[in-house]
Amino acid sequence: MAAWTALSARIRELDALAGASSVLEWDQQTQAPPKSADSRGEQSALLQRIYHERFTAPEVGGWLSELEGGALDATQAASVRLLRRKYDRAVGIPTKLVEALAVARSEGFHAWVAAKAADDFTSFAPKLQRLLDLTREQAAALGAARCAHPYDALLEEYDPGSTVGELRPMFERLGTELGTFLTAVESRPHPAAFEPKLDVEGQRRLSERVLRDLGFDMLGGRLDKSAHPFSIGLGPGDVRLTTRFMEDNFLSGLGSTIHECGHGMYEQGLPNSLAGTGLNQAAGMGLHESQSRFWENFIGRSLPFFRYLAPRMGAIWPTHDFAPEQMFGAANRVQRSLVRVEADEATYNLHIIVRFGLEVAVMEGQLQATDLPGAWDEAYRRTVGVTAPSAKEGVLQDVHWSSGLLGYFPSYTIGNLYAASFSQCMLADLPDLWEHVERGHFAPILGWLRTRVHERGHIMDAPDLFREVAGSRDPVEDLMSHLWSRHGELYGVARPR
Amino acid sequence: MAAWTALSARIRELDALAGASSVLEWDQQTQAPPKSADSRGEQSALLQRIYHERFTAPEVGGWLSELEGGALDATQAASVRLLRRKYDRAVGIPTKLVEALAVARSEGFHAWVAAKAADDFTSFAPKLQRLLDLTREQAAALGAARCAHPYDALLEEYDPGSTVGELRPMFERLGTELGTFLTAVESRPHPAAFEPKLDVEGQRRLSERVLRDLGFDMLGGRLDKSAHPFSIGLGPGDVRLTTRFMEDNFLSGLGSTIHECGHGMYEQGLPNSLAGTGLNQAAGMGLHESQSRFWENFIGRSLPFFRYLAPRMGAIWPTHDFAPEQMFGAANRVQRSLVRVEADEATYNLHIIVRFGLEVAVMEGQLQATDLPGAWDEAYRRTVGVTAPSAKEGVLQDVHWSSGLLGYFPSYTIGNLYAASFSQCMLADLPDLWEHVERGHFAPILGWLRTRVHERGHIMDAPDLFREVAGSRDPVEDLMSHLWSRHGELYGVARPR
Repeated sequence: MAAWTALSARIRELDALAGASSVLEWDQQTQAPPKSADSRGEQSALLQRIYHERFTAPEVGGWLSELEGGALDATQAASVRLLRRKYDRAVGIPTKLVEALAVARSEGFHAWVAAKAADDFTSFAPKLQRLLDLTREQAAALGAARCAHPYDALLEEYDPGSTVGELRPMFERLGTELGTFLTAVESRPHPAAFEPKLDVEGQRRLSERVLRDLGFDMLGGRLDKSAHPFSIGLGPGDVRLTTRFMEDNFLSGLGSTIHECGHGMYEQGLPNSLAGTGLNQAAGMGLHESQSRFWENFIGRSLPFFRYLAPRMGAIWPTHDFAPEQMFGAANRVQRSLVRVEADEATYNLHIIVRFGLEVAVMEGQLQATDLPGAWDEAYRRTVGVTAPSAKEGVLQDVHWSSGLLGYFPSYTIGNLYAASFSQCMLADLPDLWEHVERGHFAPILGWLRTRVHERGHIMDAPDLFREVAGSRDPVEDLMSHLWSRHGELYGVARPR
Repeated sequence: MAAWTALSARIRELDALAGASSVLEWDQQTQAPPKSADSRGEQSALLQRIYHERFTAPEVGGWLSELEGGALDATQAASVRLLRRKYDRAVGIPTKLVEALAVARSEGFHAWVAAKAADDFTSFAPKLQRLLDLTREQAAALGAARCAHPYDALLEEYDPGSTVGELRPMFERLGTELGTFLTAVESRPHPAAFEPKLDVEGQRRLSERVLRDLGFDMLGGRLDKSAHPFSIGLGPGDVRLTTRFMEDNFLSGLGSTIHECGHGMYEQGLPNSLAGTGLNQAAGMGLHESQSRFWENFIGRSLPFFRYLAPRMGAIWPTHDFAPEQMFGAANRVQRSLVRVEADEATYNLHIIVRFGLEVAVMEGQLQATDLPGAWDEAYRRTVGVTAPSAKEGVLQDVHWSSGLLGYFPSYTIGNLYAASFSQCMLADLPDLWEHVERGHFAPILGWLRTRVHERGHIMDAPDLFREVAGSRDPVEDLMSHLWSRHGELYGVARPR
């Protein structure tokens, strides 16, 4: 199998190149001095270009064709299937389009930064229109014709296997159910806030403690600070997390740490044994998000978790009194609001539903750039129930579109949905799960995710993996059931029957 | 000039690849978690392989040949000359030899680690012999035949332009002069030590202050901690320094910081305008070392420097009393000793002279691996005047040979010699230099080095640059004159006339 050996060696090379790129990225966001921006940009672009050259080289197509005609074991077959799909997508986009997109993204991003600062959509509109046009072109090049919906060609990049046909009805049902839930909650008073002043160094120490307890391997990773929390794998045995701390907003920093830890433990659990197959990767961004959301929300906002946490906090800040119930209440306040990244666990999904709807309409050709502010406000009024007083809190709030990233937003809610069903399955397998959490004993939980999710890598697409784990469970129902149950006692509301 | 454009673009690419490799290296030594070692090794090796492939590609040779036949301006001519030399060296070593060296270096390094721990040269001898044999082969491939001495082919890698013919008599004279100096100093009592307990965080803050004052641009670099201090350029606008601090050895950490700052300011001063020519590099390791040694020794161990420093130390540690004279004395204690990296400014050179002599004898075929312990002890007795009680303090003390690095050691003393003459030239141009230092006003000093050294890049080899700056000055005389003067009052000795 000379073709397999050659292909596998090339994939290892590409993994190493991607890892090297990630080192540059991590360093840029956490360590690099300001004047490095230009030279670092040149280095990153070069590594990406070399990656693209080596992946799209004709010999790779040749190896794939040769293998497709031969006898393969199950792993090889999965590997060749996945790599063929990625290869065809990578060679499918003409170089001219790649270059035009790179220019438009860079210009779009800078225009967006200025437009958001000036709260002025008009100056951004032409750049956005260019990005939307190029994105439609990109979808066509990526095989939109063979898809049931042109947006599916974009989804494939982040969540292979997910389709508009599946997502649209799920998101619609979820939106309706969330509306009912919100109406019930809004009739009741909010739980009290929790805003003690806690020094940043103590928060950092607590974060490291929590990471270790949850199961993040600090010999194969580290935690740093950055303006925007993120996690990134630099290669096997090297997963970096970042978080941020605010003296007067402890819960926010804690949530970021646990969220990134969920991503990081997924990366640490990916199957090294599949190096050189392309299968030692996450099976999609939605599935990745399911891991972070599971830990952040299902575990990290639970009362048993705050019972585990309170004495550890007391050891760091002995003059404070930490009541688990108060932290639990404060961590689960629900409120319709304007800004996605600050939204609570329930309403967060409404922000995604709005964006998904707009992106689908753009890809259907129903919306142009200049239509977006109006469509945005209308969708927010209808779906979230709030209206932004300014473009910067409205249509200009997210960076994604300014970089031509359409198709990414759904991952967040896909993640919440997967996490909800995984949680229900896990509870069935681990009936004393909450006692484990309260004792800070997270190994059985991580073990469950390792076996069913992490160690599978990208052996199949996330929707198939989800069905293998969760069977015919209904994730919308599982998410709503979790939300009603979590908030029921807190707000004194019961789900209508 | 299509060839020039193509060559220049390739060189920019190679610079970016080298920068990316440096990011991986810096991260590995300062940030990376233990389990990253394997994947990081793979990434680094890949980037180095791609670098080698792209540099030694036949088209590069073609562009060079084409340019060599045409009309070039002065910069292009210097660029083509330098690149031709590097290209011929890079393509000159057969792939088999490259691979054999890589294996022997890795095995040699591991054998040395074990041998040093066990204080047992015998187990290391066969690996070392293999490295010496391969190094002789390498020298032959690098064109030893066209050199006056086979060692010159190795010197060219680190200090292009330096030759055994020039270094041998200089080093011999220096050894004799240092012997006279030491005999004089040894008849006198040592100045008092300076060993207050100073917290590491305070030392770090002081280090950053000193870096800024000396002229290191913190917007284009940073300072971190590592086991072994080093400096590394990650690209224009991004130079990283590391140092180390010990609570009870303030002067050692300060010396490391200033030393690396000297390297870093050279990197920051290299001519960006020459990007894409290969000339925006240091003109040799000896010249690089001259910059670090100048700041560490000539400036950083001077009495005016400690007068500048003492009040800044007092601001950090207000309960201590810092006498500049005491620090000056302690920083300039001279003593024959066993270990190179802990040696004082004067005797350091004796350690280099010993190694240079042994390396030259190896390349002449006069010494084999098993001869080295005896030859080492004999040379130390004769040159340094001490005898190591064990191999680990003797022939096994340095890492260099275990990695096949012959030809590197002379750089350290070349650096001291260049620094000495530069200092004399600078004193002639800046007669009030020491008043500047005492006031913490280092800009004229850095400015002098910028113009005469940094901004020249590799427009010519270091020995030629040295002659351009220092004319016919005698660096051995300048170094000895500096040492006698610096230590004269301190030890109460006068140079014999």
